[in-house]
Amino acid sequence: MLFFTQCFGAVLDLIHLRFQHYKAKRVFSAAGQLVCVVNPTHSLKYAPTRCAAVQASTEQGILPPCHHHEAVHDPQLVPCTCPLFSCPWEGHLEVVVSHLRQTHRINILQGAEIVFLATDMHLPAPTDWIIMHSCLGHQFLLVLRKQEKYEGHPQFFATMMLIGTPSQANNFTYRLELNRNQRRLKWEATPRSILECVDSVLSDGDCLVLNTSLAQLFSDNGSLAIGIAITTSKVLSSEAEV
Amino acid sequence: MLFFTQCFGAVLDLIHLRFQHYKAKRVFSAAGQLVCVVNPTHSLKYAPTRCAAVQASTEQGILPPCHHHEAVHDPQLVPCTCPLFSCPWEGHLEVVVSHLRQTHRINILQGAEIVFLATDMHLPAPTDWIIMHSCLGHQFLLVLRKQEKYEGHPQFFATMMLIGTPSQANNFTYRLELNRNQRRLKWEATPRSILECVDSVLSDGDCLVLNTSLAQLFSDNGSLAIGIAITTSKVLSSEAEV
Repeated sequence: MLFFTQCFGAVLDLIHLRFQHYKAKRVFSAAGQLVCVVNPTHSLKYAPTRCAAVQASTEQGILPPCHHHEAVHDPQLVPCTCPLFSCPWEGHLEVVVSHLRQTHRINILQGAEIVFLATDMHLPAPTDWIIMHSCLGHQFLLVLRKQEKYEGHPQFFATMMLIGTPSQANNFTYRLELNRNQRRLKWEATPRSILECVDSVLSDGDCLVLNTSLAQLFSDNGSLAIGIAITTSKVLSSEAEV
Repeated sequence: MLFFTQCFGAVLDLIHLRFQHYKAKRVFSAAGQLVCVVNPTHSLKYAPTRCAAVQASTEQGILPPCHHHEAVHDPQLVPCTCPLFSCPWEGHLEVVVSHLRQTHRINILQGAEIVFLATDMHLPAPTDWIIMHSCLGHQFLLVLRKQEKYEGHPQFFATMMLIGTPSQANNFTYRLELNRNQRRLKWEATPRSILECVDSVLSDGDCLVLNTSLAQLFSDNGSLAIGIAITTSKVLSSEAEV
């Protein structure tokens, strides 16, 4: 009996996901856009301030600022950059992606423009929605975080980080776009390097920020669809165009 | 001696304004855009919740929700919609603009695309920056407000209201755009009618919202340049495009 109940639950879940996927496709129907349903993860990491104030050094390149365990002696090694877990792993930048995929089960998507469909936006903070995005020969980490900077007032913060060095990151521009209920919100910026700390980028608020009421206006049945596009950074180099 | 000191101060102010104007023109150099320097006003109105919960009636048309004095008996009359002052004036919708200009000294600008340059962003909350914008045969009220929704954490809220009825407002789309430091933030929405309450639109957060750190990133020497464009609302009617 229990088996049948579980099967029925699983089938309902599948129908629900399919329905969300269909709705997101309808909203973001520009030809060929890939819609990816991203489920939330309650962050298990104890680390609101794990990033020491050594970020200035990141501009030079490899030395990572976010080592929450003992100091990294080999400057070629970077710590695990997963925003969800306090992980003792460290390795070369080139293998961060495979570590995130294999150990932390973070999905990776291909394509210049994708739609990130974050489900269950009502879940209490802190909650993260995370995916990797492969595009223009590089991999990016997209993080959407629900967090209470002011107690009792959760906000949503979204950013895109390049899994690469800061100088590589400067070659790109990413765009996050929300579009629903006759409102449109677009955020464009240069991605930060994964060597800078995801936590501090989000807590500094240098990212797309949504208060709860705006998040509700842009949500559909508890899911938030974020259109993502990555380009090479010529677009923003002149700040003349409005 | 005092006279010369004051003259010198006035000349310095003029040079400063001219410099800000020049800088805004440089940033928003798309041909022919009008840059308007808008000075802050400390709101003198006691009215965080002056709007009664009668907003549902605004959809029908004329009856205003924001009468903070005794009830308006003539349904053709609207109260003063100035966000800055508790003003006992009431009159027909057609003369609201001249009342705002003459009594409250709110400037009016012409042009489909203008740049709103709000000065002295560092001033403490509550502070408002207000201007009227004449475009496509209608007048709009642009309000930028610095407010502390969470104590000690001021945020900036910006919206555009049509000086007209809700059904007229539905014919337009407004866009507010910030563009600086390799970041760009765009908000597009249907303007609300001035018959709905500016205060409640801003406090609901159904508008462009900036936390302090983002406002600093987009500011230049304490001034925030907001590019404004108004179009007829065909653009957002289909939510398909990303």
